[in-house]
Amino acid sequence: MNSARAIVCHDTHANGGWKMEDVGVRKPGDGELLVEMVASGVCHTDALIGGIPGGAAPIAFYPRVLGHEGSGYVKEVGAGVTVAKPGDPVLLSFAFCNKCAICKTGHYSNCNDFNDLNFGGPYRDFQLASKSGEPEIGGQFFGQSSFANLSIVRECSVVNAKELVHDKKELQLFAPLGCGIQTGSGTVINAAKATPNDVILIMGLGGVGLSAVMGAKVQGCRTIIGVDRVASRLKLATELGATHVVDGSNLGDKSLVEAIREVADGIGPTIAIDTTGAPPLIKAGIESIRNKGRYIQVGSAPFDFQCEFNMFNFMVAGKSVQGAIEGEAYPVEFVPKMIKWYREGRFPFEQALKEM
Amino acid sequence: MNSARAIVCHDTHANGGWKMEDVGVRKPGDGELLVEMVASGVCHTDALIGGIPGGAAPIAFYPRVLGHEGSGYVKEVGAGVTVAKPGDPVLLSFAFCNKCAICKTGHYSNCNDFNDLNFGGPYRDFQLASKSGEPEIGGQFFGQSSFANLSIVRECSVVNAKELVHDKKELQLFAPLGCGIQTGSGTVINAAKATPNDVILIMGLGGVGLSAVMGAKVQGCRTIIGVDRVASRLKLATELGATHVVDGSNLGDKSLVEAIREVADGIGPTIAIDTTGAPPLIKAGIESIRNKGRYIQVGSAPFDFQCEFNMFNFMVAGKSVQGAIEGEAYPVEFVPKMIKWYREGRFPFEQALKEM
Repeated sequence: MNSARAIVCHDTHANGGWKMEDVGVRKPGDGELLVEMVASGVCHTDALIGGIPGGAAPIAFYPRVLGHEGSGYVKEVGAGVTVAKPGDPVLLSFAFCNKCAICKTGHYSNCNDFNDLNFGGPYRDFQLASKSGEPEIGGQFFGQSSFANLSIVRECSVVNAKELVHDKKELQLFAPLGCGIQTGSGTVINAAKATPNDVILIMGLGGVGLSAVMGAKVQGCRTIIGVDRVASRLKLATELGATHVVDGSNLGDKSLVEAIREVADGIGPTIAIDTTGAPPLIKAGIESIRNKGRYIQVGSAPFDFQCEFNMFNFMVAGKSVQGAIEGEAYPVEFVPKMIKWYREGRFPFEQALKEM
Repeated sequence: MNSARAIVCHDTHANGGWKMEDVGVRKPGDGELLVEMVASGVCHTDALIGGIPGGAAPIAFYPRVLGHEGSGYVKEVGAGVTVAKPGDPVLLSFAFCNKCAICKTGHYSNCNDFNDLNFGGPYRDFQLASKSGEPEIGGQFFGQSSFANLSIVRECSVVNAKELVHDKKELQLFAPLGCGIQTGSGTVINAAKATPNDVILIMGLGGVGLSAVMGAKVQGCRTIIGVDRVASRLKLATELGATHVVDGSNLGDKSLVEAIREVADGIGPTIAIDTTGAPPLIKAGIESIRNKGRYIQVGSAPFDFQCEFNMFNFMVAGKSVQGAIEGEAYPVEFVPKMIKWYREGRFPFEQALKEM
């Protein structure tokens, strides 16, 4: 086993929480790489999954190493690995099987085994340095468990960055491209396929929402409306391309739906994206869209939340509601695109990191 | 006023119902035609709207003339009408404003004024022959009120059939193309844009559902699954192109979702279309689709029915739910297409009429 340091999640905050520990990491097997991490983003999903009490759901097992916006250098590769060689810089993203009927249609982020490969397992890769014997700490969260300075990574999660990054500093900066930034911008570009004719609403202006604003700007959407309650985020959204912002904490005598429609041709957006998962915003978003409008859910709603709307009115209006994860991106193709836009000055995602 | 005979809806069945009456019809105004009907289909929507007690909703006013699958010959045209001349055979469809933001994007069936133009008004076009004075019976239901042998028709509802039909008998046969048949086949072709790669589920095998089966056959969908409880419909669906049928009245120990998935690659359809509006089928349909699957609502659900599903699971699966009416068809283009397929023997819609 290789010696490493990892943030181990022992259970919810109240039952052990996250602790930095000395650990051992097993050798990479078939189709796996050992990666020396140089950075990792922290995503809401780390907190979400690590916040489920152990045993309360099949995916709630501990101890495990979370983290899924990693970047680093390949240290060692297992048998059959072709994506990268030792020494190559890599950017990491989600895992998928590449074999199921859904992957075969190119919708990797909706892989039939997505839950198992990204949240599940347990894949035992780590062991506390103080213990001996077989690994008993779960790894491969999103195929990578990036909250460790050395981690086992599945080949499907790897984007080889040899031709993409200039130095270690960039490799660190680019770490969140493979999840949060890709989720926001990819939803607009891949899932919504937004065009210059679109009037797009983005609810929640954290890292994902601001990335969606940037994606809408790249697509040239004629109206880009941001909604949040935090002044600094509304300001940043405007700088990144929002043509209008709606401050949910200061609506005056208007409802949120009225405030949105007012700046959306009076009839509502053609596309609405919710990055918050907050039930009142989900409801307002679906209501706000114009006839033939599309609502896309990106933020994780509470696990027991039932989306609800009047079916007859929804049908006559020709509306649609869809779910999207990971921006429906194929990271090997989409990460290089984001980096290209970044270098062209059209995708200043480092700004959005301020609000992540 | 021209003398005519019309089926006048006086209110719900218990409060006057439908009666054949001698009526007068006013002269056509700007953008209107006077059409001598030779046939009309009867659609569930006639019964649905005519079944709302007078005053219970803005669209529930009486007396009125319903009917919206009409065909006939133009008798007279009002000012500015260019679509047809007196004597031309015409097939009729829904009404739309052709001016709003939604019409301008080509989504005529989701026109912002759809409810007013198709269900609303009241547009007073008829008067009982026994009364005098201004018209007081509502017309222009779906722009046409085809349950009269003479009726005022909006220009937008007209498909000129001069180059499309050979004789009066065909004009009569083709009447339902502009609503029921177009709704079923158009949903598969225009709304779902089904391809040979699709595994499509069609729930409810009345005229609309069977038309959807024919549409799926035209598109070459590799698997076409029909669901109904009526043996004659299941048989007909098979003759029209269904590769599998599921008898909802004879599921044995399986749930409907299990029975559907069993014949849908084991993981569910890529597209599901419900033509029934029945809440248990809506629920099963949304559940049954595979990851990244699309569910399309076509049948009118009860007015107060709330569609409901777990948002987190829906999102991770990348599913979508959408509403569609009138098969998202532009009748001037889509009706000729259906007639072409009919003449090629690929769209034997007269078979489906047996179950309408």
